[in-house]
Parts: sequence; structure tokens; C-alpha cells
Amino acid sequence: MPKIEMEKDKQTKQALNKMGQRIVQQIEEEKNPSIERPVRSKSNVEFDKEDGTLYLGDNRSSRKLLNISHARKFMQTILVANKCKDLISQSRTASIRELYYQLKHQIPGLDENTLEEQSDSDPLIVDIETVTGALRESLHLKADPKGVLFGPIKIRDQGDVIDGMSMGKSGMAVPSIVDDYEFVETSAEYILVVETAALVDRLVEEDFHRKEDAILVGSKGQPARGVRRLVHIMHDRLDLPVYVFTDGDPWGYYIFSVLKAGSMSLAFQSDRLATPDADLVGMTMEDVNNYDLHKVTEKLKGKPKSDPGGPTADFKRIRDMMDYPWFQNEQWQAELEKMLEMKVRIEQQALASKALQFVADEYLPEKIATGDILP
Amino acid sequence: MPKIEMEKDKQTKQALNKMGQRIVQQIEEEKNPSIERPVRSKSNVEFDKEDGTLYLGDNRSSRKLLNISHARKFMQTILVANKCKDLISQSRTASIRELYYQLKHQIPGLDENTLEEQSDSDPLIVDIETVTGALRESLHLKADPKGVLFGPIKIRDQGDVIDGMSMGKSGMAVPSIVDDYEFVETSAEYILVVETAALVDRLVEEDFHRKEDAILVGSKGQPARGVRRLVHIMHDRLDLPVYVFTDGDPWGYYIFSVLKAGSMSLAFQSDRLATPDADLVGMTMEDVNNYDLHKVTEKLKGKPKSDPGGPTADFKRIRDMMDYPWFQNEQWQAELEKMLEMKVRIEQQALASKALQFVADEYLPEKIATGDILP
Repeated sequence: MPKIEMEKDKQTKQALNKMGQRIVQQIEEEKNPSIERPVRSKSNVEFDKEDGTLYLGDNRSSRKLLNISHARKFMQTILVANKCKDLISQSRTASIRELYYQLKHQIPGLDENTLEEQSDSDPLIVDIETVTGALRESLHLKADPKGVLFGPIKIRDQGDVIDGMSMGKSGMAVPSIVDDYEFVETSAEYILVVETAALVDRLVEEDFHRKEDAILVGSKGQPARGVRRLVHIMHDRLDLPVYVFTDGDPWGYYIFSVLKAGSMSLAFQSDRLATPDADLVGMTMEDVNNYDLHKVTEKLKGKPKSDPGGPTADFKRIRDMMDYPWFQNEQWQAELEKMLEMKVRIEQQALASKALQFVADEYLPEKIATGDILP
Repeated sequence: MPKIEMEKDKQTKQALNKMGQRIVQQIEEEKNPSIERPVRSKSNVEFDKEDGTLYLGDNRSSRKLLNISHARKFMQTILVANKCKDLISQSRTASIRELYYQLKHQIPGLDENTLEEQSDSDPLIVDIETVTGALRESLHLKADPKGVLFGPIKIRDQGDVIDGMSMGKSGMAVPSIVDDYEFVETSAEYILVVETAALVDRLVEEDFHRKEDAILVGSKGQPARGVRRLVHIMHDRLDLPVYVFTDGDPWGYYIFSVLKAGSMSLAFQSDRLATPDADLVGMTMEDVNNYDLHKVTEKLKGKPKSDPGGPTADFKRIRDMMDYPWFQNEQWQAELEKMLEMKVRIEQQALASKALQFVADEYLPEKIATGDILP
């Protein structure tokens, strides 16, 4: 049995109850039952300069039972909310796919199913998150686990203590739900989030986590919520600096951006998922010059602004990023400007062109020690 | 530093040396230097009825230095072989991407690069595997890790002992190279390989690995070489039965098929990657009937044979599988026949429609205890 924090479960149940009671009250008052929720479109996403994270604005919309285009979704929303309450009562978690299968059934007396596709229930989960203010994880719902951890930290997980320092070259898999993690002990100096799994392997092989007293978190591309939440709570509870190490390309910088400030689609969760203090350690265009990596760069994809039809692809993404509020500083503008000028991208693994151990023995320790990072 | 078995390293180095010496000898005899290797196309893949695995036939082809269409590839093959020898000497492993970056450079005096894309070096690795008989892992090359393990087994990995029974709900990540794993201790009754990560989560949450004394290996879709090799060596060294649990669809059965008999593209490695003794525990069409799961099936994709233009997609794949030599038995023919008849597929997670704990408390223990499995 999972031992997800009891106190939080109580709060989440209360929030779900409140949502239900509001509807009961509306029925008793002979009003059209409705569910109020914040609008989640781009137009309602704002940036909090002080916190350094994205958040949802005040625009709200209403889903009504007595509205032909809302009625089915209204019913489904209640079904999902009710099942989440069940899960919490049972101390069970379910994958979002299992949730769908648990709810799918024929409505008695009708030739209609409650749900047809998982794409019916998935957005309703997010609705319930915004209505109740509870994270998906607090609703006992989980997605596929993704990510790996190594390094000087002991984590209590379901009663077991996992020692990140004695995981060989295998590592601890990062699950979808980490809220119940208890950090027993750490001697770490910092947390390093690494985009590619192969680079984590490299660092582990070079004993980087031991030599540098660093917690390594491999995100395997765009970090799943589990990894984002784990980085957030480690930073928060252990007061450790967070460095992010990605490819030097628009996708890598977007990964950094999501870790740092949150994402548009999960703006309502930024305060629990984002880590505004995170810095980018590399790869940068400056690295290409400083470490003479010109021969192992690749061309940016798409057309620059000066070409007919441009900017497209990478060139467009870079220009979009230049407008991000959290990139409004000299260093980031210079970096993105330089990328547009040099018209290249560079992978983390391109550092292997120097020597396999270069990234662990020179590149990362040097850059971190001298503070050669982007905010 | 990784401690990959010394003896195997010596053998691999000898095999690489032999490859080089042969070329030196050809040069000394003023012959056209060539590399002989088995043909890897479908026409040269055969099935060994006794072993129950695919293997490469005797057809060979030759890559010659003094042949305009071979010369560049010849040079690249030698570069890759040489770098693998380096890696072994250094006791380092490299990702196949790092290998590419390590070898990419301008050829002195020419305006040509040794390699342009990773797709230049990747097939050469397989060439060298077939020529030397050494696994990619023995050449110290690795791919991205994929997969997770839980259960009653202690594994020595790089000096650390990882206890699969005290990994909470996080689990041990399965790396790309597992040949150096040492199995210290196990009380397991069997190994269960599970297709989806979410289903592994479910089983762990229900304490299945503890109650059933089962080693759970999550493959996250088509198993990577690391998972296939791990299942092979656990079965081999620990003499444990292997059950495979996939979705009831052509893709799931193909996953089973690859685990059991090997794949066409890696036919030369079946004896090290395949586990011919593995059985499929589910999902099957019989399950749909026995457990009344009709409402949570999905339609097969594509057109049946009876439709104009058919069979396509799923229907075609099922018919292809019916011809697999290792599916030439009554049970599999009946299963595939039934799938064609019922025209449906069923997911593992559809069992959640009964109850979340159903898969762990009833379905799997019942099927395994009564031997209701496919060979």
C-alpha cells in the first residue's frame, strides 16, 4: 500500500467535496448546476516577475449541466472527480489510462458510453486540477514514469530507503509521483539536470556524481512532471543550486525554460513544478567558440528571417524565445542573438569529440566553478 | 570506472585484432584488402527449430578497399573497429552517438569528413558485431537505457549491491549494458516481463512482486537490448521461468516474439538476447471471453482479407505472425485465428475496468497457477 501523505489526502478530499457540495446546493436552489474553472488558453497565462514563474490569470468560464453542448462533459467531469475521491479513499493511485477504463461503461437505459476515448477524460483531469487546486498527483493519478537519478542522496520511498550513491550504473527510476519522497540525508553540493540519458551514463561512468558531490537527474528529453516536481522539491527542501545541462538548440533551451518558469499548458501548477532559481550550464554558442567545437555543430533547421518565407522552424523558435519574459536579460538575449548569427546548434554529446572524459573532468566543473552559466 | 568482465574484454580485443591482422596480411600479399561479413538481409535469416531462435545463415559478402563504392565504408569500418579497441583498452564505454562524434573529423589533406551522420557509423557497428562475433555491449558501446526492475533479487553492479526489493515505487533503471551484472541472491519464483510502465506501477502498488515472489521487468514497449539481455541472463543463470505480459494486439505479440525467438535485424545475436522458454501470460482473446471484457476492447486497425485491398495493418500483421515458425502450434494458431474472427484488440490496462487490483489479485496469479498461457 502506498503511504501518500495523509494530510494532503484530507485536503484534496475536502476540495473535491466542496466541488460536489456547490453542485448539490445549485440543484437545491433550482439553479442550473455549473462548474466554474479558470480559462486555460494562452490569453489567460501570465508571468509573475517576482516569483519568476508563469501563472493562470483571472478569466473564468463555466460548464453547465443544462446546456446541450456542455451536458456530456459535465457528467464526465463529475465521474472523474468522483473516481478520484474513490482512489484517495482506497489509498490507491491509478494511471490516467486506468482511470479511463475504470469509468468507461454503458449508461444504463441508454445506448451511450460514459466515455469513448482516453482523450475524453484526460482534459477533465486538468479541469479538476484547476478547480480544486490539487495537483494530478494529489488526485492519485499518475502518468508513465520517466527519468533517472544518481548521487549522494538517500530517499525514503514507501518505507524503503534508496541510496542514490549505491545504484551502480543502473540508477533509480524516477516515478510519476514523488510528493511522498522523504529526503533522509544528502551531502550534495548541487543538482545537475541532464537532457539526454547517454550523457547521464557518461557522467556516471566518469564518477562525476561522486567526485563533484552532485545529484544527477536525467530527464530523457522534455522532463515529465515527476522529474519537474522532484527537482522542485529537492531544491526547495534541501536548498541546493540547480544547474540544467541541455543540447545547445531551441529544444534544449525550451526544456530549460519549462524547468525554470513552467509551461503554458501547466501554468496553474508552476508554483509546484517550476524552479525559477535554475541556471543553464550549457551548451551555449560561447562554448562552441571557447572549446573550438565548430566542426561538430549542426546547421539550424528552417529559414532565417532574411529568407523569403522566414523565419521558420529553429529560427522562429529562437525569435519566440527572445520574447519570453524570463529571457529578458543581457546574457540570454546575447546567447539567442549569437545562435541566430552563427546559424548552428550543438549537442551535449558533441563534447565527446574532445575526449570522452572531457565533459566530466573539464567542461562541467570549470563552468560551474567559474559561474559561466546563463540565468 | 566500470568493471566489465576482463576475460570477455580480452576475447573481444583478440577478435578485433584478428580482423585487423587479416587486412595487414592481405596488404602484405598485395591482395585487395577486404572484410568478409555475413549478409544481414531477410533472405539470410533462418530459424533453428532445436534452439527455438532465429540465426544468420551462411551467405557472406565482402567489402573491398579497392572498389570505388566500398572504399569510404571500408575506411569507416576500420575507424569504428579501432575506436572500439581504444574503448576496451581505456575501460570506458561510449554511446553510439559519442562514438560518432569521437570519429568525426576532417581527413588531413582532403576536404572530406570521415563521417557525416550517425547513420554512417551505426550500421558499421552491426557489421563489426557480425564479423567479430562480439556483442555491441562487448565492444563497449551502449544505447539509451530503457526499462525498470523490481522484485526479490540482489544485483551487484559496479561494486554496489542493488536490492530490487527495497526500491519503493521508484525501481531500478535497466541500463544498456548488463553483462557485468552479478546476481548475488534471489528468492524469486519467476520473472514477469511487462509491456507498459503503467502496469508495472500497478503491480508494484499492489505489492505483487512481494506476494508472488516475482521479478518484475518493465520493458516500456519494445524491449531495448538491455532488457532482452537481462531477461536472457536471469533466465539462464537463475533458472527461472519467464512470463511475458503484453497488450492483446499484434504489437504486443510481436514484443513477445522478439523476446522469445529474436528479431530479424539482430538474428546474429539471438543466442544472447532471446529467451525461447518464455511464455505469454496475456492478454489473449480467450481472456476477453473468460473475463467478459468485450466492452473495453478496441477494433483492429486496417482491413481484413475479405475486404477489397485487404489484409492491411493489424490484419496483415496477424497473418504474417501466423507464418512465424515459433507460432506453428495449435494454441498460437487458435489465438491468432480468434483475433481475426473477433476483429478486436485489448490492452493490459483494460483489466482496470474490473477493479484496479484485479490484475494483481486474480488475473495473473490465476493464469500462472493454472498454466493458462501460450507457449
